[in-house]
Amino acid sequence: MWGGRFADGPSSIMREINASIPFDKKLWRQDIRASLAHVEMLAKQDIVAAEDAAKIIDGLNQIAQEYEADGVPENLDLEDIHMTIEARLTEIVGPVAGRLHTARSRNDQVATSFRLWVRDAMNDVSDGLWDLREALIARAKEQADTIMPGFTHLQVAQPITMGHHLLAYYEMFTRDSSRFWAAKERLNQCPLGAAALAGTGFPNDRQMTAEALDFAAATANSMDSVSDRDFALDYLMAASQTALHLSRLAEEIIIWASQPFGFVKLSDEWSTGSSIMPQKRNPDAAELVRGHAGRIVGCLNSLMMTMKGLPLAYSKDMQDDKPPVFEAHDLLGLSLAAMTGIVQSVTFVPETMRAAADSGFSTATDLADWLVRDVNIPFREAHHITGAAVKLCEERGCGLADLSPADLTAIDGRVAGHDMPDLSVEGSVASRTSYGGTAPEQVRERIAELEQTNRL
Amino acid sequence: MWGGRFADGPSSIMREINASIPFDKKLWRQDIRASLAHVEMLAKQDIVAAEDAAKIIDGLNQIAQEYEADGVPENLDLEDIHMTIEARLTEIVGPVAGRLHTARSRNDQVATSFRLWVRDAMNDVSDGLWDLREALIARAKEQADTIMPGFTHLQVAQPITMGHHLLAYYEMFTRDSSRFWAAKERLNQCPLGAAALAGTGFPNDRQMTAEALDFAAATANSMDSVSDRDFALDYLMAASQTALHLSRLAEEIIIWASQPFGFVKLSDEWSTGSSIMPQKRNPDAAELVRGHAGRIVGCLNSLMMTMKGLPLAYSKDMQDDKPPVFEAHDLLGLSLAAMTGIVQSVTFVPETMRAAADSGFSTATDLADWLVRDVNIPFREAHHITGAAVKLCEERGCGLADLSPADLTAIDGRVAGHDMPDLSVEGSVASRTSYGGTAPEQVRERIAELEQTNRL
Amino acid sequence: MWGGRFADGPSSIMREINASIPFDKKLWRQDIRASLAHVEMLAKQDIVAAEDAAKIIDGLNQIAQEYEADGVPENLDLEDIHMTIEARLTEIVGPVAGRLHTARSRNDQVATSFRLWVRDAMNDVSDGLWDLREALIARAKEQADTIMPGFTHLQVAQPITMGHHLLAYYEMFTRDSSRFWAAKERLNQCPLGAAALAGTGFPNDRQMTAEALDFAAATANSMDSVSDRDFALDYLMAASQTALHLSRLAEEIIIWASQPFGFVKLSDEWSTGSSIMPQKRNPDAAELVRGHAGRIVGCLNSLMMTMKGLPLAYSKDMQDDKPPVFEAHDLLGLSLAAMTGIVQSVTFVPETMRAAADSGFSTATDLADWLVRDVNIPFREAHHITGAAVKLCEERGCGLADLSPADLTAIDGRVAGHDMPDLSVEGSVASRTSYGGTAPEQVRERIAELEQTNRL
Amino acid sequence: MWGGRFADGPSSIMREINASIPFDKKLWRQDIRASLAHVEMLAKQDIVAAEDAAKIIDGLNQIAQEYEADGVPENLDLEDIHMTIEARLTEIVGPVAGRLHTARSRNDQVATSFRLWVRDAMNDVSDGLWDLREALIARAKEQADTIMPGFTHLQVAQPITMGHHLLAYYEMFTRDSSRFWAAKERLNQCPLGAAALAGTGFPNDRQMTAEALDFAAATANSMDSVSDRDFALDYLMAASQTALHLSRLAEEIIIWASQPFGFVKLSDEWSTGSSIMPQKRNPDAAELVRGHAGRIVGCLNSLMMTMKGLPLAYSKDMQDDKPPVFEAHDLLGLSLAAMTGIVQSVTFVPETMRAAADSGFSTATDLADWLVRDVNIPFREAHHITGAAVKLCEERGCGLADLSPADLTAIDGRVAGHDMPDLSVEGSVASRTSYGGTAPEQVRERIAELEQTNRL
Repeated sequence: MWGGRFADGPSSIMREINASIPFDKKLWRQDIRASLAHVEMLAKQDIVAAEDAAKIIDGLNQIAQEYEADGVPENLDLEDIHMTIEARLTEIVGPVAGRLHTARSRNDQVATSFRLWVRDAMNDVSDGLWDLREALIARAKEQADTIMPGFTHLQVAQPITMGHHLLAYYEMFTRDSSRFWAAKERLNQCPLGAAALAGTGFPNDRQMTAEALDFAAATANSMDSVSDRDFALDYLMAASQTALHLSRLAEEIIIWASQPFGFVKLSDEWSTGSSIMPQKRNPDAAELVRGHAGRIVGCLNSLMMTMKGLPLAYSKDMQDDKPPVFEAHDLLGLSLAAMTGIVQSVTFVPETMRAAADSGFSTATDLADWLVRDVNIPFREAHHITGAAVKLCEERGCGLADLSPADLTAIDGRVAGHDMPDLSVEGSVASRTSYGGTAPEQVRERIAELEQTNRL
Repeated sequence: MWGGRFADGPSSIMREINASIPFDKKLWRQDIRASLAHVEMLAKQDIVAAEDAAKIIDGLNQIAQEYEADGVPENLDLEDIHMTIEARLTEIVGPVAGRLHTARSRNDQVATSFRLWVRDAMNDVSDGLWDLREALIARAKEQADTIMPGFTHLQVAQPITMGHHLLAYYEMFTRDSSRFWAAKERLNQCPLGAAALAGTGFPNDRQMTAEALDFAAATANSMDSVSDRDFALDYLMAASQTALHLSRLAEEIIIWASQPFGFVKLSDEWSTGSSIMPQKRNPDAAELVRGHAGRIVGCLNSLMMTMKGLPLAYSKDMQDDKPPVFEAHDLLGLSLAAMTGIVQSVTFVPETMRAAADSGFSTATDLADWLVRDVNIPFREAHHITGAAVKLCEERGCGLADLSPADLTAIDGRVAGHDMPDLSVEGSVASRTSYGGTAPEQVRERIAELEQTNRL
Repeated sequence: MWGGRFADGPSSIMREINASIPFDKKLWRQDIRASLAHVEMLAKQDIVAAEDAAKIIDGLNQIAQEYEADGVPENLDLEDIHMTIEARLTEIVGPVAGRLHTARSRNDQVATSFRLWVRDAMNDVSDGLWDLREALIARAKEQADTIMPGFTHLQVAQPITMGHHLLAYYEMFTRDSSRFWAAKERLNQCPLGAAALAGTGFPNDRQMTAEALDFAAATANSMDSVSDRDFALDYLMAASQTALHLSRLAEEIIIWASQPFGFVKLSDEWSTGSSIMPQKRNPDAAELVRGHAGRIVGCLNSLMMTMKGLPLAYSKDMQDDKPPVFEAHDLLGLSLAAMTGIVQSVTFVPETMRAAADSGFSTATDLADWLVRDVNIPFREAHHITGAAVKLCEERGCGLADLSPADLTAIDGRVAGHDMPDLSVEGSVASRTSYGGTAPEQVRERIAELEQTNRL
Repeated sequence: MWGGRFADGPSSIMREINASIPFDKKLWRQDIRASLAHVEMLAKQDIVAAEDAAKIIDGLNQIAQEYEADGVPENLDLEDIHMTIEARLTEIVGPVAGRLHTARSRNDQVATSFRLWVRDAMNDVSDGLWDLREALIARAKEQADTIMPGFTHLQVAQPITMGHHLLAYYEMFTRDSSRFWAAKERLNQCPLGAAALAGTGFPNDRQMTAEALDFAAATANSMDSVSDRDFALDYLMAASQTALHLSRLAEEIIIWASQPFGFVKLSDEWSTGSSIMPQKRNPDAAELVRGHAGRIVGCLNSLMMTMKGLPLAYSKDMQDDKPPVFEAHDLLGLSLAAMTGIVQSVTFVPETMRAAADSGFSTATDLADWLVRDVNIPFREAHHITGAAVKLCEERGCGLADLSPADLTAIDGRVAGHDMPDLSVEGSVASRTSYGGTAPEQVRERIAELEQTNRL
């Protein structure tokens, strides 16, 4: 497999391990944008003559048109996208191209281009999270009254509503969004002009290029400027958290779509079928979203380990910063889009969910709470009385709502004379009106709040 | 090894795998604090009678005194710290203790206690980071003029100052600090009173307990309240970034302390010696800081993997949230304290660093920059002229600063008539005055700025 | 939190970060065992006088008795278990204790003790895996005819038997066992006597100590002897694989135990209940097993990252090798024991499983296979005919086994005149007699084979 | 960025997330090979007619020629390489192509192809490791007498030889090789014919296909056959260990190549230069090898996390098994080849290494050992005497070898009358003749042993 490579002699292996153009060509837009800002500053500061700057600007714009139309050529000898663009610029404008590289170095150039790309990526994810949160809100509103079992330990615990359940994910993805915002703010300093590591003697105006590229400021230390990859790790950490949340929702959808659960039916677009079993809907999209969580976390691990113990300033190891970020971003983008589509299109099966909510004596805590509240029995005693009631139901094969006042009084005399509580699943759900609780009115209030404060 | 355990029968294994008291007893202060806030709210809302609340409050205060004095008893049968405290409360105040658990459940109780603990931990780290940043600033100020080689690829690249180098780490740890602040803000919502998963029918006032516990708000969804562990992951992610930065500084210190480098001498307190070689200083503390980065990242991985694909709401897997956070926090605390001590006490060896900075033609870029700036030669051509000058020096066994104007003119005629640049390491460093550059005046300006804006 | 520590001055932080005695005291048996072997060799080689060796041996045996009775004292000033034992030996036998350390160093001593411990740990896991595999075989034999649905994508796919399903896990745990065996063989070389890193000038007989400690050989390079931690990583890798397998089985048990599935009932010993819902069985043990997989993999990550990029020979970072191994081993031991208990005690619910197997037209592939085999219709066409048959059943609300020959002939004329296949789940399962297939006879054959070849 | 995708509607996202053809087309050779073996078996077993089999075989061979010549077409609608090949086969031979899929399913087909690929990959790595080990042996032989300092804590500890140092890495890579061999043996069972999950009713001969594909046996459980990815994890675990070893050697080379060390000069082929500093050699290849360790471990993490908690049998998450294995293999292949090239071509600088070995009183342990051995002073006392001697040298600015008998006697009277030891670095190295020690004769003996036993 590598035999062929070896035949080309060691230099071909070196060229292959050394070149980053196969992946960093993704950065061409960012590199050109940064170079345009840089050369305009050089001209304004009289570091480069105005006519030279004009030629360079024209040349860069021409390259942008070429790449937009035909893609980026991949020549391993030019190593990376930055040399590729510089080489093409030299072909177009001649030796004056060399003046572009004044008062900067490849180290700060790489750092700037990658930051710009990651900033765009963060914006993309924020958009994707917005769409997903909108989808969740829309379905939550629609399903505010739909009763389903709430689980702990995947055991039926208490009845809840699907609207309430979906809002739990809304909260997670809102936190994810805030993580990307915080990361973007932290990233938003411009390393351009920091030069190789020590700064430069040219009178460059780093604040000017920072502003031109929409950064809040220039980075404050030139060594940190070229050796920092926190912004990439911040992206990967926020992406990993998001992927973990997506994996939880995916797991639920897969379980809900199984025949024994039957809580949901997946749409054709977001499942795969089988010619032999036309009724079948495999939750492939949800499974891939769940699987991708592993790969996204793998990308984070990759970069954490690569950065461990690197002395300042630039080390070539840092070239391994881009593949994991690019891979994670592709996977996260697909995962968010797929999950949004699944949420928008899934069909809930209320009868099945309600029946499951009704099983397992899910309103036992309601009975216990009533004993505490209305009969004034301490909590732990109330538990034991409820346990006896559940046992009685099991013997009779009935539900808690089927017990008569006499039944309960027989278990504990203190109950006598009290109005019986509503132990139906509807009653249970409606009663849970504490802030953030599952009662439909609470669900609707939370949604209204979100819509008003534009917290979405 | 496990034979002994097996002899006790399966129930002993179950008891051991199930119990969290051996590690979650760390949360006793937080549990009691949250219970005090909860019972006061219950009283105010007339959910619990005032005299019952008073008894419970007295009981909780008594337990706090007991634990402070004698530590927390570890009884596996009581499973966790929350049951341990409740059992003791029952011993002290009798069945009325059961009323404390009204309008909450163990799920939100655990989540609240752990959040309080993590919030404290974030404050601790912020303090530790502050101390380290102060130490860096102090040494940077002192070493603002000390010349050393700046490295890329661990090859001498350009002369810099130690003050400048230390400020690069200041930037890293400042970002770390901002990460903990952002995480704390995100964490700062109170799950108490969310109950098991569905909310409660009791008229509890969750905003009141949130406020009493210094949270900004109550959490907005009861299912998310009990199934969310983002705050723990946020802690571990910020800790991992910090640990990576520490590992880089540790690596540098280890390399600098090696005999061939000899840039620094470690103090007795932060190294270990050898009776056989009394001159020896092993950088054990720095090595342990570097090693701990692996363990802290391991803790992050542990929790990410545990949380992957968990359906809502509470699953017992989530009991594995605490050991990695506790372990990471111990390791990070020691690492920060040790690194602060190392930075404060390390002795720099200026002669050795200056000599190293002078090697390797480290001012070659200064010559090239001068050719561009003063002789108006395009950048890439200037590089080639500089290369020829370096070759000449190699042949002569001299430095670039030793070349005469005639030497340079012989290489390229355009140089004739121009004043020669200062190619000494001092001259190089002094000239790099771009924003964030290594020039001592820049280093001092940055420090002054930090001190003024209290950005420290 | 760390304030208290700081008050003690920097040396207390150094002492705390530096000391390994709090965790490496676990190695006391291994350290003494290795020292006994070493001193016997020293005596035999005349490096130490026979009477001195005798005193040392007596002293070591006395220490072993003391520790067995009273535990290991934890004095941070003595740093680690090896210095702790040496200090105690000096108290007991005087300065002659110093002769024990001839022709070895702490580096090879640590490496030897830890290897011995890990070897024991590997044996423990092999025993635990054996017990689990025995439990699986026993239940598989018993459940060889019990029909359940086989899932892909957690969708009912084809009927299988529980015996067959359990044997799949048997295969996984057998591979795990082979991994520990291979790792043990690789570990089984003795570093004792390699000294600090360069070997020693004393005429020690490293083969003799290797043999005395049941190693296959002495390690062949003294630098590798002290800087190698592959054996610990091998342990953690094998443990991670095992934990992943356990997590899959745990996930299935949790899903099977949910009310909508209802395939199993967990025993009291391996679940937790609720006083309020006495019928409830929370699968806590299975959830903890699943959660522990995250922590065990976290331990592996920890050590991989710690070892990355360490120059030879010993670096203090390597002190961080033990905590992850110790933690992983505790968690794996509990997980294996708990899973064995769960498998042994779980009650299967055949009616529910059979009913689920009968749903979802799980024998559709049997119909298609019959069309191929008996009617000689190409595979892909057979699929389409089967699809039409499934649709017909859906419309009628019946199963495939309920269709008449006429029904099928109406769909495709080529069927006419052929004997109908048995499309019951029993028929399907019985027919899958390919090697390793789900047919009860296959399951029984595989078990018989395992028992005969003692492959268990 | 994803905007464009969304415009195409949800189905395009589904198609993109679902399709594996962009990466699994790498498996085309393995898929065709397995299909050829399968159809020959089907013919022999009379499951498919001989003439049909012949047509299929011709068709598959034709496809192989097409792909070899023109590459594999990438059509997302055909999802994966297996459907791509089947579709092309149908075009070539018509509906008879459908008979190929008899008595197998896509699940076992995927598992078989991937196993065959991973087995080839393991062979590749074994070859790469062999080359690297050969290079190490060759250089070790050549450098058996070259003295350098041996480090602990990156502090000069004792003189060693470069040959000895290189053999330490030989040991590591030999263990790596054994890991791949063990993994290959464990992998070497054939899942083909296991069908979807339950086995098949067709009388297929799985042993026959296993043999045809050079597997040792058919897999013994059909569910495990399709849900097992241990072989991929085994590959990644062995690759991670190898990468960790490579990262250690890379770190050393980077440190050795730094100017303050100056132990080695890198060849032009395996470093990058600078037009401005022609004397410079950046160790880019070594840095990339070190960096790649992070990415390879990231790949392992990815798959471990993806597999966690997956219920049987096949889940679509498992499609994420291939990208990490493919990526890790590319990176490992390049890393091994690059490291082999570096080792073969690096120039050692004996004078600099010897001078460094001579610094730091590196023969202090030799003096102490001599006091123990020849003067019969207990070890710990000998340490203190040596410490005093080192202090004296420090005061005088001389080395230990420069001390006179009188000097030592003045420190401790017991020394009087004993012949002085050879405390030169040459003497030290020559004396360390314990098995596996650094003495040149030991190094040569170990190499001879390796060459005789063909252990290489």
